[in-house]
Amino acid sequence: MATEKNQACLLYGAGDARFEEIAVPSLEDNPRDVLIRIAYTGVCGSDVHFWAHGGINEMVRPGYPVTLGHEASGVVASVGSAVTNVKVGDRVAIEPGFPCCHCSFCLAGKYNLCPDMTFAASPGPGDVVHGTLATLFRLPGDFCYKVPDDLGLDEGVIFEPLAVAVHGLRLAKLKPGQDVIVLGAGPVGLLSCAVAREFGAGRIIAVDLNEDRLAFAENELGMSTYKFNTAKSVEENAADLTAEQHLQEGADVIVEATGVASCVQTGIELIKRGGSYVQVGLGKKMVEFPLVVMSEKEITVRGCFRYGPGDFALASNLVSRGKIPLKRFISKVFPFRQAPDAWEAARKGQGVKMLIQVDGSQT
Amino acid sequence: MATEKNQACLLYGAGDARFEEIAVPSLEDNPRDVLIRIAYTGVCGSDVHFWAHGGINEMVRPGYPVTLGHEASGVVASVGSAVTNVKVGDRVAIEPGFPCCHCSFCLAGKYNLCPDMTFAASPGPGDVVHGTLATLFRLPGDFCYKVPDDLGLDEGVIFEPLAVAVHGLRLAKLKPGQDVIVLGAGPVGLLSCAVAREFGAGRIIAVDLNEDRLAFAENELGMSTYKFNTAKSVEENAADLTAEQHLQEGADVIVEATGVASCVQTGIELIKRGGSYVQVGLGKKMVEFPLVVMSEKEITVRGCFRYGPGDFALASNLVSRGKIPLKRFISKVFPFRQAPDAWEAARKGQGVKMLIQVDGSQT
Amino acid sequence: MATEKNQACLLYGAGDARFEEIAVPSLEDNPRDVLIRIAYTGVCGSDVHFWAHGGINEMVRPGYPVTLGHEASGVVASVGSAVTNVKVGDRVAIEPGFPCCHCSFCLAGKYNLCPDMTFAASPGPGDVVHGTLATLFRLPGDFCYKVPDDLGLDEGVIFEPLAVAVHGLRLAKLKPGQDVIVLGAGPVGLLSCAVAREFGAGRIIAVDLNEDRLAFAENELGMSTYKFNTAKSVEENAADLTAEQHLQEGADVIVEATGVASCVQTGIELIKRGGSYVQVGLGKKMVEFPLVVMSEKEITVRGCFRYGPGDFALASNLVSRGKIPLKRFISKVFPFRQAPDAWEAARKGQGVKMLIQVDGSQT
Amino acid sequence: MATEKNQACLLYGAGDARFEEIAVPSLEDNPRDVLIRIAYTGVCGSDVHFWAHGGINEMVRPGYPVTLGHEASGVVASVGSAVTNVKVGDRVAIEPGFPCCHCSFCLAGKYNLCPDMTFAASPGPGDVVHGTLATLFRLPGDFCYKVPDDLGLDEGVIFEPLAVAVHGLRLAKLKPGQDVIVLGAGPVGLLSCAVAREFGAGRIIAVDLNEDRLAFAENELGMSTYKFNTAKSVEENAADLTAEQHLQEGADVIVEATGVASCVQTGIELIKRGGSYVQVGLGKKMVEFPLVVMSEKEITVRGCFRYGPGDFALASNLVSRGKIPLKRFISKVFPFRQAPDAWEAARKGQGVKMLIQVDGSQT
Repeated sequence: MATEKNQACLLYGAGDARFEEIAVPSLEDNPRDVLIRIAYTGVCGSDVHFWAHGGINEMVRPGYPVTLGHEASGVVASVGSAVTNVKVGDRVAIEPGFPCCHCSFCLAGKYNLCPDMTFAASPGPGDVVHGTLATLFRLPGDFCYKVPDDLGLDEGVIFEPLAVAVHGLRLAKLKPGQDVIVLGAGPVGLLSCAVAREFGAGRIIAVDLNEDRLAFAENELGMSTYKFNTAKSVEENAADLTAEQHLQEGADVIVEATGVASCVQTGIELIKRGGSYVQVGLGKKMVEFPLVVMSEKEITVRGCFRYGPGDFALASNLVSRGKIPLKRFISKVFPFRQAPDAWEAARKGQGVKMLIQVDGSQT
Repeated sequence: MATEKNQACLLYGAGDARFEEIAVPSLEDNPRDVLIRIAYTGVCGSDVHFWAHGGINEMVRPGYPVTLGHEASGVVASVGSAVTNVKVGDRVAIEPGFPCCHCSFCLAGKYNLCPDMTFAASPGPGDVVHGTLATLFRLPGDFCYKVPDDLGLDEGVIFEPLAVAVHGLRLAKLKPGQDVIVLGAGPVGLLSCAVAREFGAGRIIAVDLNEDRLAFAENELGMSTYKFNTAKSVEENAADLTAEQHLQEGADVIVEATGVASCVQTGIELIKRGGSYVQVGLGKKMVEFPLVVMSEKEITVRGCFRYGPGDFALASNLVSRGKIPLKRFISKVFPFRQAPDAWEAARKGQGVKMLIQVDGSQT
Repeated sequence: MATEKNQACLLYGAGDARFEEIAVPSLEDNPRDVLIRIAYTGVCGSDVHFWAHGGINEMVRPGYPVTLGHEASGVVASVGSAVTNVKVGDRVAIEPGFPCCHCSFCLAGKYNLCPDMTFAASPGPGDVVHGTLATLFRLPGDFCYKVPDDLGLDEGVIFEPLAVAVHGLRLAKLKPGQDVIVLGAGPVGLLSCAVAREFGAGRIIAVDLNEDRLAFAENELGMSTYKFNTAKSVEENAADLTAEQHLQEGADVIVEATGVASCVQTGIELIKRGGSYVQVGLGKKMVEFPLVVMSEKEITVRGCFRYGPGDFALASNLVSRGKIPLKRFISKVFPFRQAPDAWEAARKGQGVKMLIQVDGSQT
Repeated sequence: MATEKNQACLLYGAGDARFEEIAVPSLEDNPRDVLIRIAYTGVCGSDVHFWAHGGINEMVRPGYPVTLGHEASGVVASVGSAVTNVKVGDRVAIEPGFPCCHCSFCLAGKYNLCPDMTFAASPGPGDVVHGTLATLFRLPGDFCYKVPDDLGLDEGVIFEPLAVAVHGLRLAKLKPGQDVIVLGAGPVGLLSCAVAREFGAGRIIAVDLNEDRLAFAENELGMSTYKFNTAKSVEENAADLTAEQHLQEGADVIVEATGVASCVQTGIELIKRGGSYVQVGLGKKMVEFPLVVMSEKEITVRGCFRYGPGDFALASNLVSRGKIPLKRFISKVFPFRQAPDAWEAARKGQGVKMLIQVDGSQT
């Protein structure tokens, strides 16, 4: 490892990406950590925001320059002395955020709320945290998840958005047989549909404006769909959907994966009395919200932040059943040096998930 | 009972109240029902809305003419053949809404969400449902709760807003030791403070603009208080409160008992990561809501509608401990024929709870 | 309906079954009720106990003579004036126990614990309650569940044991991805395996002594299996199973569907720390129980009684997905007059589920 | 600290205690740890078992020689470089078990089930773990809890059994207003009564054979009591208690703090349908258990192991309210060199809690 070089794609600010060598992370003082030789990194909406605007809202912005990327897979290159769950050569998907493991949130089983979380390419309490668009990435061995032999490392990248979907549906406390409406059919929305089915949901209906995405939901995942009509009001869209889908009392669970006000409001309108709503998508800071309807129907509305204990493990378990067509989620793979092209493609809303191949020798 | 007359205070529309005789309800086809000779009826914000505007928002309005009132106590005047839990002469507080007991909501333990609820003086699926501002009121025996011997029937009126507070704090899933902030120190807010203490809460802080109400919270209930400063922003108020009260991580539970946008937003700002927020107050239909903060802190926000199974029974149990000073909540008692004066007093925000004495011979 | 006759199979005591005419139940005072022309009745272990011994233990015994049977399907013959969910001619499965709908258990969403439950062919608080081995059976319309068009009424009988399995797994709070061991591969155990899969369980392992049942689990349901070795100790069986199935930490959920002491003890031995155990099978009143192991692993052990709100509806929903091979559970159909032969067959442990065809004209 | 000596009370086996010097624990490789100068150590039933028999059952026995003691308080003597919550000189109660913080149990919020727990004076996966009967004790700073200024360090010892009681009642999911029966009025049973009251329980009834303990429950804690009659059957005792205490439907929650078969069985007999039972006491490995009654009443039975996230913090919060008379729980304080006399006194069932004063200069 001594002579290894660590090539990174560093963002110096909006629109300014440079390929430079950064230090190889050390395992010396980190016996629980491993080094991963990154194979692929996926493009997430937050990457696109950083690339296009330098941040999300005014608050969420990494220190610069920063290596972008947090959806990733690769091969274990070296392991610290205390690591037992993986060994050099293992093909793994990674969970890119590492909590302190000692605060009251961590001890209470909510490590995603840890105030001292270290999250790849994301704002944290201290120094810049580099992401996965680099040859080598260091993380605790406990946060690596083996990719099954019959899956490619490109598919391993999908573990991360799948864990987001798993976290959302666990938070929503979806129970078998319950009807679900997913608003927004981007990667996380589509994966939420797939997860809902694995959780034993009753009816699952994907909603979007975009016909390509709805076609994906229908053809690749076998979901029911509803095309949101922007010319109509929230109430009209809700009425049309419930009529088309024969959902008289509304849905038991709403997964809102857009963060857009009209979708949020439609979600609350569509929900059954006593139902559960989870806010998976992030949009504007403030949204006009139908608080009285929420009260009268006694709805539970939950915020949703990344993923916590067991989410990646369950994502991995669901993947191993072979019913989620991970390969179909990968729309295009860009070479490492064309990372900005991948971000641009995602920015334009092309396809479902764009991948960047960091090390072409791994599959 | 044959010669009994039933004098009612009927509202014919905004500002038009008349005292007239209405039919005596029959128990003949209702063997599970009882007739109550009403002693007192309390004034609720909804009564004031009906009196002043004829409805709440454009949607919630009773049929007219309607007997107002739903917070009430009295004495059992007669019982149906299947009633076993109360007998003639019992002094009782009443639960003024009666579910169908057969739909999926009722069977699932959420009868407050029953679509066929019959609720006193409130819009329902069928005919006008008369309220408790009348000599006699009919309800199922199961919805009567005995008033302890050492309490007056005037205090029995407080069971209803207390059940609202109980329902809110049960929904909030308040756990012993947790810190609570109650926004709004009207009757329900103040009772929520008292209930939180009975539930074993840690710190409890009442927030309001009104110094009289804060003084009540402090002096009668022993609560910590914070005076909301309307000249300051949501963030500033939240920062001031957390500094004054040494609540660095925020409160575990927020009870929002105003429905006002700035309070709603302050509540979300004040809550701890992973905390629980319950919307007890009703205000404008749409409110600007900090959805991103809700997501990043992974807050659970719950709508809250009236009361359900066990809420009145628990309210009754709490009352019997003698630690909630019910008598102090009663600001003034108006004679039956001065009911409009009671509504006007409540409209002006005077005192905590106004009572109307329907039958002066009962105590 | 006036001239309809109601032929019943009445048990007068152990071994004494007679075919006699009983009164046609009336809908006159029961506007929420319907009359069902019974097509099929399944044989349950409790029927066999009543037939062979006149009761279960010394406590559970119906009044005599009683019409046996509670697993049943049929066609709606007439409906009371308040019934809206079914109409004459509908093919339905029935839920054979009807709670009072008014007590605190019913209102709290636990109607299976209602002290005033009326349960077909079962001991109740008042008179003999006749079961479903008769031409006509009366029950509330709300307790009928439509059988999908593509299923036979014989398959409709399986809704009842399926609802038992659903109730057990909901009580066990099985979460997606969790590993389950089901002890006992009789009808309820086998259906529990099928339900666990529909609920998104991870690994599911059926355990029994009987190779035919294990073969059914493996071939018809695709389950993993373990043959319990009566020559070995509880600890040895547990060790063998965990080794064979690579379940190092134990199972998250145990469904104990035998009530036999050695199986109960093996279940506790096999469970993961913090895991959940549900007692679905009923056996001897007292069982030697490993209380210290339960404490040290902090296991949750739940009693399980029949089915409650939503269980039949969920069973019906699962059936409609077509993944549970109901037809395969039906081992043999006996004509009405040979009901005792069906009980004897079940008593000898033959097949999975024996059916009695009450009215051969319905399918 | 360099010249500090560490005097310990070492147990070499049953009945063989020696006072010897052991090594001073180092903070060098443990920056999150602190050293506590122990003031007091309480005597727990497990200490008595180790002293009298060398172990509990055949399985639970520490390596020898071992420093006994795990209920303790003291003053912070030195702190590691990463410690922020306490400083030298702080008076603290200690939580004597330290989980790995990294396994799936720890991350899921169940650190008491951590397979790699290090617990004072208790069997663990590796070397002997010394307890608190020594001048100095090392533990993570996060596991220290400040003793309020108005409490003595002797009272600080009670935090530990109080945390056991807190854990039990949290596991039991006791809700405000629910009736509780506590079987066994030893230290943990009595503290369970006190905690139940702080949690807002309805009626609380302490049960024991020992009149001194029942008098303590009644006089010091204000509890209702029932004297268990060993000449009567389980059913008779249950009937007598429910008659005396007017608990017709049974108790919502049972805390079983003895582990004795007759008490366990009485607990199940006394519980309400749908109720919750928690096994806090440990007794014989196998107990005759009424499994059928558990099923028919659909009871939830929970094992209970030590304490987990938040239990000590909540115990500390409850203590600060001043309503639990900690001082009264301390029956006698023995000097360090008379530790065996303290164990003998506890063995004879004298008083409630025996303390050993390790360092007489601290209060």
